[in-house]
This record gives sequence, structure tokens and C-alpha cells, in this order.
Amino acid sequence: MNIKLFQQKFFSAKPQENFKKIKESINNLGTNELGLFSTFALCGNLPQSSLKYLSIQEEIGVVLSECIEISANKNFIVFVPEKENNSLILCYVSNKNLQKISFQTTSEIPVIDFEGQKIGLTLFGINHLAEISKEISTLICFGKNSIGIVDKDAYYQELSLVSKKNKIPVVFVDNVGSAANLLYPGGSFCVDESTNSGIFFPYFKDFSQNTDIKNITASIQKETISSIAFLQKALVIGIQDYMFQRNFKKVVLGLSGGLDSALVAALAVEALGNENVKGILMPSEFSSDHSVNDAVDLAKNLHIEYEILPIKNIYKQCNTTLDPIFSGTPFSLAEENLQARIRGLLLMAVSNKTGAVLLNTSNKSECAVGYGTLYGDMCGSLAVIGDLYKTEAFEMARYINREVEIIPENTISKPPSAELRPNQKDSDSLPDYPILDRVLFAHIEENKSAEEIFAENPDIESLLITKVLQMVANCEYKRRQAAPCLKLKPSSFGIERLMPF
Amino acid sequence: MNIKLFQQKFFSAKPQENFKKIKESINNLGTNELGLFSTFALCGNLPQSSLKYLSIQEEIGVVLSECIEISANKNFIVFVPEKENNSLILCYVSNKNLQKISFQTTSEIPVIDFEGQKIGLTLFGINHLAEISKEISTLICFGKNSIGIVDKDAYYQELSLVSKKNKIPVVFVDNVGSAANLLYPGGSFCVDESTNSGIFFPYFKDFSQNTDIKNITASIQKETISSIAFLQKALVIGIQDYMFQRNFKKVVLGLSGGLDSALVAALAVEALGNENVKGILMPSEFSSDHSVNDAVDLAKNLHIEYEILPIKNIYKQCNTTLDPIFSGTPFSLAEENLQARIRGLLLMAVSNKTGAVLLNTSNKSECAVGYGTLYGDMCGSLAVIGDLYKTEAFEMARYINREVEIIPENTISKPPSAELRPNQKDSDSLPDYPILDRVLFAHIEENKSAEEIFAENPDIESLLITKVLQMVANCEYKRRQAAPCLKLKPSSFGIERLMPF
Repeated sequence: MNIKLFQQKFFSAKPQENFKKIKESINNLGTNELGLFSTFALCGNLPQSSLKYLSIQEEIGVVLSECIEISANKNFIVFVPEKENNSLILCYVSNKNLQKISFQTTSEIPVIDFEGQKIGLTLFGINHLAEISKEISTLICFGKNSIGIVDKDAYYQELSLVSKKNKIPVVFVDNVGSAANLLYPGGSFCVDESTNSGIFFPYFKDFSQNTDIKNITASIQKETISSIAFLQKALVIGIQDYMFQRNFKKVVLGLSGGLDSALVAALAVEALGNENVKGILMPSEFSSDHSVNDAVDLAKNLHIEYEILPIKNIYKQCNTTLDPIFSGTPFSLAEENLQARIRGLLLMAVSNKTGAVLLNTSNKSECAVGYGTLYGDMCGSLAVIGDLYKTEAFEMARYINREVEIIPENTISKPPSAELRPNQKDSDSLPDYPILDRVLFAHIEENKSAEEIFAENPDIESLLITKVLQMVANCEYKRRQAAPCLKLKPSSFGIERLMPF
Repeated sequence: MNIKLFQQKFFSAKPQENFKKIKESINNLGTNELGLFSTFALCGNLPQSSLKYLSIQEEIGVVLSECIEISANKNFIVFVPEKENNSLILCYVSNKNLQKISFQTTSEIPVIDFEGQKIGLTLFGINHLAEISKEISTLICFGKNSIGIVDKDAYYQELSLVSKKNKIPVVFVDNVGSAANLLYPGGSFCVDESTNSGIFFPYFKDFSQNTDIKNITASIQKETISSIAFLQKALVIGIQDYMFQRNFKKVVLGLSGGLDSALVAALAVEALGNENVKGILMPSEFSSDHSVNDAVDLAKNLHIEYEILPIKNIYKQCNTTLDPIFSGTPFSLAEENLQARIRGLLLMAVSNKTGAVLLNTSNKSECAVGYGTLYGDMCGSLAVIGDLYKTEAFEMARYINREVEIIPENTISKPPSAELRPNQKDSDSLPDYPILDRVLFAHIEENKSAEEIFAENPDIESLLITKVLQMVANCEYKRRQAAPCLKLKPSSFGIERLMPF
């Protein structure tokens, strides 16, 4: 029995656009092949609100009809969104006939007949895979959730067990590419543990492959890739797809000489090419010499254009204008934020003037504790590393530098600082990042309370844990206005994690 | 049979805080009374993510135990949130016993016995009210949704029909107050259409009342209030509760001389008192004389403090700093946005320096079409009129001026302008607001497509409709970073309406 699996990038909310690719794939299908498209191949991942509109539903209906129209002697599976309950309907199109299957948590696994075989169809996480009926000779499982939901091997681990236990081949069809800030890794596969064979699709790429599912020859090996390399690849593709889907070419970002902006610049150059990335250096009176030097070194290493726009004079003028209110008051958070906001304002001005998209460079640790200025360094269309903890950002910087120094060594090794007041260091207000990130990870990714975190980390002071969790709760209001981040984890900030504010 | 209905304001995610009020109410309950607390009285309206934390669940469990502890010879109903499916569990506490009821869409209406009567219990919108079992002698319905879900009379209209049809008294227990930007109006009631009697609770106030449900004496009349007055009251309470729950006292806002900022200032003064509201006037070289004069007149009418901070010098200095990039380019959107962002930056500086909360003054029409500057006039902690269309803002301004001119007549009657370039008018880029708002309302509140809107509004050019809908779609990315707005309608912008961006 032959399947042909299409792992294809999609556009969200543009069924007609997606149909162009799907049509070509259908036309190339052999009559004895079952074509498999991923869950979002046709419609993209549509937010629930958009399904309230008759127009998008009609458009999807039209495209589904067009699929059926060209299905003479063809067999394939596509999905359309279900209007009501944020789920999906599987459409099995066979020689101009359409069979619709809606998934329910409690029901048995739906089955279709193809070439005399009973094929079980599941949506990952919806059907229970514990009991597979004996009549099912092949199981096809479709992925629905974005990269954030599981680590890259989790699907494979679970499904290879299903194959082993039931002695049947199992196919996993994943989405690939992105819908706004949601990332889908691809990495579809067909495995048959009874013959120890498998075919593994690459991550983050359009790829299709014909497979005799009853006789898999392991011609494509499983990609071995470290977690940090996988995340790095995800972020690069995330930037690429975000820009491509919106017809944007160029990005701009602020270069502070620090780690976060250096990392985002390196990722952007890999995603878009050095000719499409511009750095803006905005030193203030509190900036150290090395800030500018490190940023210039980075720009040179990356071969990107950069501009130096000192903020001193604007800052001075702002203070003069604000004199009726600021006069006689001591230097405070207001003045610190003012500098960050002048930078945000300059970056947005460059973005507006040149048509380049402003990339935000905040990391997840600082978003978590509110160590960032709303409308200042929190500006930007896309928070590239907003779901990466600071310690992960360090790890990724080292990974990027694995062969040649791209991110200046001094940027990685110097103590992190916002440089908004004389001799300021992050460690003045925050615990060291390795400690901070352990607390944050336990709280945000594992939903643990202060008591639970302390019980598991007796080396961290309980007062410190309580203080960090209070900071997280107190700045939920900032995160409600933060730039959307490329989602890498289940509890990415944004609509996936809403708390009282 | 006696009920005592407690319509009480609550704190979100602070069960211990809420318990103080509930405890007092329980202690005042007579032994033959059934006490009714609203769905969020105990826990507040908790976002789903927060229920993943064991700590909040434990805290809720403790408070529920405390309720049971003090329930000797008392009978009452409170609710706790259900962890899994964003629903609620009804807790009937009777003489130290607890009966839990979980609501399902398909099941029959749950019933409890009290003083020999069968009392049906429903959660509004969950149970079908078409068929009420004959054994039920009283129906109690609890509200769950915020003000945005229905107009103020919808509950009453539906439930009085239920009372009429089944010849039983019907009680509606609504939440009152706010959870962040969600507003609950109160207006609980007990009606018995078989005796044409009813008791109606006030809107937006703590109120409790003992009622012999089998013999309602219509001692409290239904409040007659126009729609615009109701919305105005809702916004005032929204500001008040937002500030009170966060221990904030003072607000600041920019006064442009235009309608939106004038309206928000008037609402803020009614909510917080004139001593807690500060206006900042930030004229530019493009500001007309009347802008400053109208804003000053407003500040004088409202007896609020104001400060004039001209932005000209900062704007000039920004242009000088940006010269390496701006030099030789024509005046464009970048320069317009720059002015708006300088204002945002000054307002945030005043907010940071003085501890006053910045109120955002954007209306729903401009949020819809993206006629606002991200990090500029879109700054602020709370978008007071962000769910009010411009035509509704005009109506509310007239309502506020019904007895005495508070908002200067010139502010209401002059053509709206952003004043970011010479002689700019909103009507240069947008259709007149009455037309625009008809299109927007049909699209956003009624989910209609361009074709449907044109079919129902043949007097509006179809090209214009298409253009407006395209503007709405194109600026979804801006709304993802907008200040949360006080929610008045089902499709308020924010997490209630997410579209592809």
C-alpha cells in the first residue's frame, strides 16, 4: 500500500494560495497512492474568531470543492477547520467522493478503506492510542499543535511504541512552517517497528515522499540535532516565514552591545541575509565604551549596515520639556525608562521611514520579571527570542559561535547590564540568571508554586523565590502589551498564558 | 421560601479577600434563608492559565472549607472554578454539608431540596431552559458572562418568559464589578410573572436583599436607564474598580482638545474625583490654537490640574538625531508617528514620575482601522473607551453635557483631526464616522463580510466597504499590542477577538 506524504508550508487564512501547492501535489499523485496533507495545509492555522466569518468558510468550501473536482482516480486526505469547537474535520477525498470525519475524544479511532486495507486515522492528542482495533493495518496520525507543545522527539517516542505494540506501521504527518508566531517543525515520519524500519522527513522544510507503507526501506535517516540547534533552526525559520508571508524583506534592530540583540541580529542574518538586516546603535551618557565597540564588532562580523544615533541630546531635551514636572525630583525609574523609550521611538522612526520591520530583542527571563520598558525595549513586531530564557540565549550564542566568533566574546562574557544609570548591572535587581531561570522555568513551564519550587531547590532562598514569583505576577500587565514572541514552549507568554492583571 | 441574594463586588484571584465579605453575609443569614452568592463572588473571574497552579486551587479549597466551617444551620450557594474546562462548579453548602454540582450542556437542570421545595439551578447559557421539569418550584439562574455578552435587558427578557411559561418564580444572580477589563453589571432580580411581581437590584452596586420567593412584593422597581447612560455608568465603574483593586489613586491622560480625550477625562473625574485626574497638553507645530484652548476649557470645566508640555523642541531634536537616516526624505508617516510617540513618551514619563496611571483614550473605530500610533497614542494601562465606536463617543459626550457644558461644545462640533500634519482631518483618510461605524459594526459585532454589508447597505459604495475591511485586517498586529479596553461588547478587541496577524 502506497502513501505519499506532503509536508508543505502553508499560509494562514489563504486557502486559495495554499490550493496552488495542493493542486500540483494532487496532480502528481499516482492512482494507487494515498496522498496525505497536514492539518493546516489547506487553511493554515486559523484563530477561532476568524471562523465566525461566512466569507472565510465559503472560501474554504470553494477550495475543498476544487480539491474534489480534480480527484478523479485520486485518493487523499486534507483538513478543514470545524466552526464551533476549535477542532478540525478530516476530509477523505476519493475519486470525486468526499467522506468527512470529525474527531471526538471518546470515540473509537475512525477507519477508512483504501486498497483493501483498513487505515486508522487520528489527530494527535485527541484519540486514545492505547487500544487499536485489530482490523487496523496502518495508523496515520496528524499533528495539530505547534512546536511549543512538545519537544521534537516526543511524537516519535509515543508513536513508535504504538507501532511496536500493535505491530503495524505508523505514519505521522506534521505541519511545517509558521502561522504568525506559531512554529510547526515538520519532521513527519513513517515507522514500522516490526521491521525496524523508518523514513524520517527533515525539519522546517517542504518535503514529499512516496512510501510503500508495508515495505518501508529506511532510505531517509532520522536527523540528529541537538536541542539548542533545533531551537536555533526554529527561530531562523520563524523569522523567515514571518517576513515572507507578509511580503517584507528588511529588518532593523537596536544593537546595545549586549547578548540579546547580538543573538537576534545573528539569527536575522541567517534568516534573511546580511543585506536585509540593519543595526542601530543608540549610546547614552551611561553607555560604556565597550557597548559601542562590541556592537560595532558584531555588525562587522555579520557584515551588516549599522548607524550610530546617540540619544544624549534628545534625552536632555526631554528633561527640559518635562522640567515643570521633573524639576526638583531625584533621578528615578522615570529617567531610566525615558532612555529606553527614546530608543524605541528612534527604532520605530527608522522602521517607518525605511519600511524595515523592527525586531524585538527581549528574552523570556526579562519578560517574566518585567525587566524591560513598555514602549521602549519592548517595542517591535516580532519578539524573536521572547520564549528563550537568558541562560538558553547564552547557550545559543555559544552554539552560533561554535566554529567562528560571530557574536563578540566580550558580549557573551561581560556581566549583563541595561546601562540606564551609572554602573548598573542586571544583578543589582535580579538574581544571577542560572538561579533566576531555574525558578522561572519551574513556575512558568511547570506551573509550580513557591512552596513546590523551594522544596525541590533547597539551595535557593525561599524569600528569593517568593520575590521572583511576585515580580512575575506584578508585570502581567506589561506582557499584555508585549510584542508576540516566536513560540517555543507550551507556556509562551501571550495568549497561551493569560493571568490576572 | 426565603432567599437572600448577595450581589457583591469581588476581587479576582483573591479568595481570602472575598471571603471576608462572604463570611459576614453568611453570618447574617437566617436559618430558613437560602443565601445566593454570584458565580465569581468567591474567586473572581480567573483566567484559565491561573488554574494550572496548585497554589490558587489550594487557596480556593481552604476558603471553601472555611465557608463550610461556618455553615451550621445555614444554607447557601457559592461557586468555585472547574480546573479543566473553563467552567464552574456550584457548591450548595447546607448545615456543614457540601453538595457539588457541575454543569453540562446536555444534562437536565440540576435540582436541590430546600425547605421542602425543589429548586432548579442553572448557569446562564449552559442549560436549556425550554423544558423545565414540573417538580421545580423555583428556578435560580446564575450569570457568568461579562457585560459585553448581552444588553442589559436580555437576561430579564429571557427569564421572565421562563417564569411566565412555567408559572414559577425565577431568580437571576449576576456578578457585579470588574475583573481587570471585564465588567459585570449586577442588576440581579427575582420575578414571578404569575403574580406580576418582581424585585430588581441596582446596577454596579453591592446590594443584598431578603425575599420571600413565593410572595414577592415588588418593593424595588426596575431601574430605567438609557443604553448610553448604562454604558457611561459601566465605564465609570470600570475605571473605579480597576484603580481600587490595584491600590491606585491618580490618573494622567493627554488632552488634545479632541473628543476622545475629553470624554475619557470626564469619565475619569466622575470615577475618581477631579483631584485625582491630571491632563497633559502637548501641542506641536501642527496643533491649531483651538486644540489648546478647547483642552484648557475642558480642564477648567472639570476643575482638574493640567500642564502644557510643547513637543516642538523634542521633535526638532529627534529629527536632528535621525538626520543620517531621514536626510533628504520627504515628510511622511514616520514624522507623523514620531510626534504621537513623543507624546506617548512624555505621558509615560509623567506616569512613572508621579505614580499616576496613564489612561488610554483610543476609541473602537480608530482601533479597528489602525488610525492610531503604536507606542504613541496607543500607550496606556487601560483603554477606557476602546470598545466604544466614535459615533457612540459623540453620543456619550452629549449625554454627559445633558445639563451643563462639561465637554466644550467646540470639541464636539469641530471636525475630528489627529493634527499630525498641516490641516489634517480624519476625513482625509477615513469615511465619515457614521458611515464608517455602520460598516465596522456590521463586520466586527455581526461578523459580516463585505458582500453581506453591501447587500444590507446599498447606499455605501462596495469599494469603500472592501477598503475598510482590508484596513481592519491589516492592523490586527497593532491590536495585539494595544492597551486592554473596558469590555462593553461581545467582540471587543483583545483576547475576545483574535484574527490572523
